[in-house]
Formats: sequence, C-alpha cells, structure tokens
Amino acid sequence: MLVMPYLILAQKKSDETIMASIYDEALSNSPLYENLRVLCKDIGHRLSGSSGAAAAIEYTRQLMIEYNFDTVYLQSVMVPNWKRGPVEILKITNSKKQGVIDFNALALGNSVGTGPQGILAEIIELKGLSEINEHRDEIAGKIVFFNGPMDPTLIETFSAYGAAVSQRSSGAAHTGPYGAKAIIVRSITQSLDDVPHAGSLRYKAGVKALPAMAISTKDANLLSQLLKDQADLLIYMENYAVILPETQSYNVIGQLNGNLLPNEYIVIGGHLDSWDVGEGAHDDGSGCLQGIEVLRIFKSLNIKPKRTLRAVMWMNEENGGKGGKAYADMSKSRNEYHIAAIESDRGGFVPRGFTSTGSAKQKQQLLKWKTLFEPYGLHDFAQEGGGADISPLSNQGTLLIGLLPDGQRYFRYHHTEEDVFEAVDRRELELGAASIASLVYLLDQYGIANQ
Amino acid sequence: MLVMPYLILAQKKSDETIMASIYDEALSNSPLYENLRVLCKDIGHRLSGSSGAAAAIEYTRQLMIEYNFDTVYLQSVMVPNWKRGPVEILKITNSKKQGVIDFNALALGNSVGTGPQGILAEIIELKGLSEINEHRDEIAGKIVFFNGPMDPTLIETFSAYGAAVSQRSSGAAHTGPYGAKAIIVRSITQSLDDVPHAGSLRYKAGVKALPAMAISTKDANLLSQLLKDQADLLIYMENYAVILPETQSYNVIGQLNGNLLPNEYIVIGGHLDSWDVGEGAHDDGSGCLQGIEVLRIFKSLNIKPKRTLRAVMWMNEENGGKGGKAYADMSKSRNEYHIAAIESDRGGFVPRGFTSTGSAKQKQQLLKWKTLFEPYGLHDFAQEGGGADISPLSNQGTLLIGLLPDGQRYFRYHHTEEDVFEAVDRRELELGAASIASLVYLLDQYGIANQ
Repeated sequence: MLVMPYLILAQKKSDETIMASIYDEALSNSPLYENLRVLCKDIGHRLSGSSGAAAAIEYTRQLMIEYNFDTVYLQSVMVPNWKRGPVEILKITNSKKQGVIDFNALALGNSVGTGPQGILAEIIELKGLSEINEHRDEIAGKIVFFNGPMDPTLIETFSAYGAAVSQRSSGAAHTGPYGAKAIIVRSITQSLDDVPHAGSLRYKAGVKALPAMAISTKDANLLSQLLKDQADLLIYMENYAVILPETQSYNVIGQLNGNLLPNEYIVIGGHLDSWDVGEGAHDDGSGCLQGIEVLRIFKSLNIKPKRTLRAVMWMNEENGGKGGKAYADMSKSRNEYHIAAIESDRGGFVPRGFTSTGSAKQKQQLLKWKTLFEPYGLHDFAQEGGGADISPLSNQGTLLIGLLPDGQRYFRYHHTEEDVFEAVDRRELELGAASIASLVYLLDQYGIANQ
Repeated sequence: MLVMPYLILAQKKSDETIMASIYDEALSNSPLYENLRVLCKDIGHRLSGSSGAAAAIEYTRQLMIEYNFDTVYLQSVMVPNWKRGPVEILKITNSKKQGVIDFNALALGNSVGTGPQGILAEIIELKGLSEINEHRDEIAGKIVFFNGPMDPTLIETFSAYGAAVSQRSSGAAHTGPYGAKAIIVRSITQSLDDVPHAGSLRYKAGVKALPAMAISTKDANLLSQLLKDQADLLIYMENYAVILPETQSYNVIGQLNGNLLPNEYIVIGGHLDSWDVGEGAHDDGSGCLQGIEVLRIFKSLNIKPKRTLRAVMWMNEENGGKGGKAYADMSKSRNEYHIAAIESDRGGFVPRGFTSTGSAKQKQQLLKWKTLFEPYGLHDFAQEGGGADISPLSNQGTLLIGLLPDGQRYFRYHHTEEDVFEAVDRRELELGAASIASLVYLLDQYGIANQ
C-alpha cells in the first residue's frame, strides 16, 4: 500500500510547529527569569574559589535534579583562587588644581597587590600597547596609564572590545620589562560613566608581576586632562590582591539521554563563575540558566531527543578557563563525540542570530535553518565565533556555536557592579533560551556533518 | 571628451561612505543623549496643556535655534486639557481574606472622575470586549473589571498590544449602555509587576462617561483570584480626573531648506507630549530628539539636502492627535508635497528596520535600500505601518515610514513611572537616529515615487 506523503506530513509535526511550541513555552511558562533572580539576588557574585561559586554550584545542581533530568553530576576542576583583598586605594596625591583625588578603582583579576607599603610614582599615559616601544625609555619607575578608548563607531561592540582589551590583559606583561612599577587601565567600555570594570590580566613568565588596577572612563578622562597640565602628577596605589593556591571547584552537568544516538552529544551552557562585583547577571548567569532552561523545555514539551543533550555550567571562564578545558579533557577520555556545542556568554539580551566556528559544510548546514529563525528576529548567522568554554572541543570536529544577542548594551554592564538582575529583561532572556532550544531541536533531529 | 565612469564614481562619495560617516557622527559626537537627559530630568513629563509641555516646546525650539537650522517656528494647536486630579483611590473594602486592599491605580486619560462622593460597587470580571454581550445582563450597577492579558507568545509585542488595548480605549464606551458604573483595566503590558500603566480612552457620543482606572498586572491577578473566592467583593473608586476646556499649545518645527527641490519635503520626528507619569523618555522624548539629531547630523557633516527637511515635534499624540492633524492641515493649505514622512514613536531601542505604508512601488523602492542597512543590524523592512502623527499626510501620496526598533522591552515602560531617562541606552538611541538620518539621506538623494 502506498503511504501518501501528506499522511507522513500529518503525522510528524513540522519544524515550524515544534519551534512555535518551544517559543510559546519559554515566553509563557518559564521559570528562567525567577531562577536568574535566585542566582543573582540570593547568591550574588561567584568568582572561582569563592563561597558564592560554591553556592551557585549547589543551586544549579539542585535545580536540575528538581527538573528530573536523567543525570546530574559535578565534575571536579581545580581553579585559580585570586582574592581582591579588603582595601583598594588609588589616588592622585599632588594635583595643583584639585589636591588629593580619590579614584574608585578595581584591582585586575589575577594581579598581585601592592601590599601595605603601596606604590607612589609618576605616571606615563599610553593609548595602547602599540605605543610602548616608542616610549620604552620613559617607563622605568613609573605607573603606566593605558588610556586607549573602545572605538564607539564600531557597530559590533565585541570587535571594539577585542581591539582595546589587550591593554588590560597584557599591559603589565609588556611594560614590566621596561621597569614599570604598576599599571592603571581605562575601563574597557564605550560608556562614559563612573563605574570601573573588572577583568583579568595575564603575566608573562620571567617578567616581574606588576600591580594593576582599572578606573572608570570618566576618571580616565580626568586623569588624562590633569596630566596635560601637570606632568609630575603622583599616584598612590595600595591594594591587597593575592593569588592563593589553586582550589577545588566543579563544573555542573545535567543530561537528557538520547533515545536513538545516545553516544552523540549536544552540549549547551555558560560559565557559572563571575567577577566579584555585581551579580554576574548577564555575564554569565543568563547563559547558565538558559542552558538549564533548554533541557527543561524539552522535558516540559515531552520532546525525546535522539541524541544526548547536556547543560553544562563551566567554572572559571573569567580568570583561567579551567572548567572548559577539564570538560573537553573528560569528554576525550570517555571517547565522546559532540556533534555541536552551543555557548551563551554574550548576555541575556534579545537574540539576533548565532555565531559559528566549524567547517564550510557545517556552516552551510546551519545557514539552511536561518529562515526558520527569521520570524523570531534572528537574522545574523554569518559571524565567526563559538565561545571560550567550548573552544577546547574543536578537535572532536564539533561545530561550535555561540548565541548572538544584540550587543549594544553588553559593555555597559560587563564586569561591573551594575551587572545585576535588574539589567536583564525577562522577554529578551526567554527569547534567547527559546532560540537555543530550537537550534538544539534541529541539530538533534537532523544531525550535522563531522567537519 | 569622454568622461570615464570611474571618474564620476571617484568624485561622488558612495552611499555606503556617507552612511558610515552618519553613523560615526551619531556614535561619537552626538549631543542626543544629553539632550534627552535635559528633556527628561530638567523638564520631565509633559501631558498636553501642562507646564511640562510648555517647557518642552520652548526647550526644543531653543535647541534647534542653537543648532542654527534655517527656520525654527511654532505652529499653533488647540489641545485637550485633561487633568488627573490630586487624589486617586481604588480599594477593595470587604475582602474576607485580606480586609481592605489598596491598589496603586491610575485614572485613564480623558476619563471623568468620580468626584468626592466616589463609587462603591460590586465587580464583574471580563477578559475583553468580546465577553460583554454574553454578560450584558450582569453589568448594570457594577464596576466592570477588564482583565484580558497581553499575549506573551506573540513575538511582535505591538501586535499583542493592539489585540488587548481595546479594553482600555473602548471598555467604558461599550459597557456604559448596559449600566456599568465604572471601569477597571488590567494594565496593557506583558510584564508581571506592580506598576500601573496610563493611557487614554474614548467615550462614545450619547453614552454616559464612566470613570475608569488602570491597575498593575499583579494587582489584576490578585483581584481576579479574590473574586473567585468571593463574588460579592466591593470596590471603592475615588478620583478627580477632569476634562478642562481646550487650551493653546504648539507643534515645534525646525527646517533645513532644500537646495534643488525646496518644495519637496521630508518630515521626521516624534510627539513631544507624554503621559503625566514618568518622564516620557522612550515615549516619545527619544523620537523627538532623534528628529532634531537627524538635521543636526546633516549640518555637522555639511550635507546640503536637495529637498527641504523638517524635524517636527508633534503635540498631543497621547490623548487627541491634534498636532499631527494640524500639521497635515497646514501642509495642505500651503500646497506642500511631502515625499516621505518618518515617525519614531516606538522607543529609543536598538533599530531593526523600518515599517512603511504606501504604494507597492514606493515600498519596492524602500526595500532596495535594505542591504545598505543590514551592516547596521536593520533587517526588517516588511512590516506595514507608519505612525499616528504622520498618518494624516497620507492623502498627499506621501510614503509613511516608522522607525522599527526592537520591541521586546517597550511595554515594560510604556505609559508608566518607569519610562525614565535611565531606561534608554545611549548607543541604542544613537543608532536609531543614525538609521533615520541615513534613510533621509537616501530619500533626499534619490526621491521616491508619488504613489
């Protein structure tokens, strides 16, 4: 007997229908926003090794158990244990115009402190690493003030960030060899405000580790202005940042087992650690809880995945990347094959598309689904990128994907005391989760080429 | 002598280059955000006929004079003069569970007050106008509580708003004939919170004008829950809303004269009036100041328009639409021809495209420019729509265009005390202005079909 095609069509729900039910679920019945409130307000910030991180590990583990995922477990990860210390002082001591000027400054993550003796020195202002060489003979004994702004004319804010962030991440390593005493960095943001932005640096083996602090963009402008009139300005820096021995922490993993191809994995998630200011709402509480929400939606809609789905809360993205690496190592040792990995680490903003890193064939396959997402406002499938925590999976031939939310507001909040629950919009957060869940559904249904 | 095409190309800057300079200008040197701060913080809300509206008229007039536009003037408009009154009371008086419950309620714009005697009555809950007929015999002597929620599953929030808002705008007119004593409306928003949303109603000639107030979505849920347990709940309403005689006000108009086709006009802008709560930051301070910013950008980049460009701050969009109508009447009496009108009245959010209302030919022409806007994140050129204040221009054959920002956050703030300066993001606002300026540039360069 002939099976008429329309009967097959009638039996199987279309991708459009499934996606509509996914978005409906996320926009009407979702606990996602409330979960983010708990993570932000009841737990708060959670730098690797902190009590906040420990509480967040237990909270997300319990949440996935409560949602009755097939497996929920912790993966052991040793992480750096950097502490800011109790006091942070940064001030101009001798302004002829304004006398003593106190700055609201933050020690950079992974930096060493000055200790109680502090550092008092003159300042040399540079606009970026590229100016070091020209001024290398003027650096010795001074505090180097990196004051290169983020370019506001770049539409893609992440590109502007990428172009400016080397001052923060490598300024100390590059000026240490010329005898700099410490580093001050203009906060890496396009906003002009009074809020200093945290973030990490990397020292270089064999180069003296310099204390380093960030100031707000308004303070950076003020300091630059004062330096124009008075070259012999003195800055006093005192902080107690300290790098303690590595400590025990965990990735948090929840899983729905595949019914047909359980040995093919699709992983989604974000990083559970955050900076030690604000609440890590956009960076990256949103991404973590979106990952859990994707699996919850599958269960709630009774969609049985063919492949095994994992929500992972990686630990230590901010100052070490140990969780992402440990996850890939474990996966390799178990001979797992991840067909795709999706990271959400650009904030809980309205989704506009997906970035990807993979083969041309994989990208082509992804691009075919674009029209399914356009009714939901996702148009941008062209940008390269995956994510810091999933990048170690690339040697499995895994297609790496990043949720691409609108990026205009991200660097207002990034690494600051203003990255709090209230800065996240409920619908924008939910639309992101629904978009990831829809893509996971398509990847699970149709698979994707291995390279 | 042959003029080689490449020479012509070399002499004229490409549209892409001009657009890039427009976006650069808006994102790096713009006073737009500071202008919005002044309008919101120094002046504040500005309902038609209020002192705030008068101050805003003078502020925007002075701003355009300061920017040295070719002509700046006021157009006289008589506007409704509705006042909320000093006291607003709405409370349950006899809950068996909770006793007296006070609601934070707002009288609807253009509604009559109860006066000092107040109204005490039982409640009938309806989910929308469509339920009136079925319950028409139960309405007499009661307060009708319209509690139909905005559909959260619609991706286009303006569609969800459109489907729900008739409860607020027409609930009183439709239940008055059945003897209702007053109206309570669930705030028209998808957010679940404690914030009541203002907005206007329209009475019907020959139908008794009923007092009407809005409550927050959380209060609406509470009221609905209590009604389930106790049908004889009593509500007491008291307010002093009053409709005073029409009063003198103005549209504010600034102009750059066209060099080649001065009798062809392109108008851009928003409405200067706002509700009498919050600061009217998104609705519609953003649109007004974006209109001024477009002309400022032209002057700053020394782009001489072929056609005449006008920035208009229409008065009274919120509760009468008198400004938009008066502007079209003036234009008609002067025999002006507007080739296009662009309204920005969907908030200062990140732009995603343009809506349009016009002939197929006009829309086709607009669509051709879409690829120029895609690098700036504008992909949506398909939606129908123009704007309330420009719609009276349609009989000139004018192409009506609306800036289409992302709409996910709009109805959180709409008509509330939370529509304040801080809810607007600087870059999002600037990108909107640059997008309008770019479209004005293209319309001015190439013109557009008349119907």
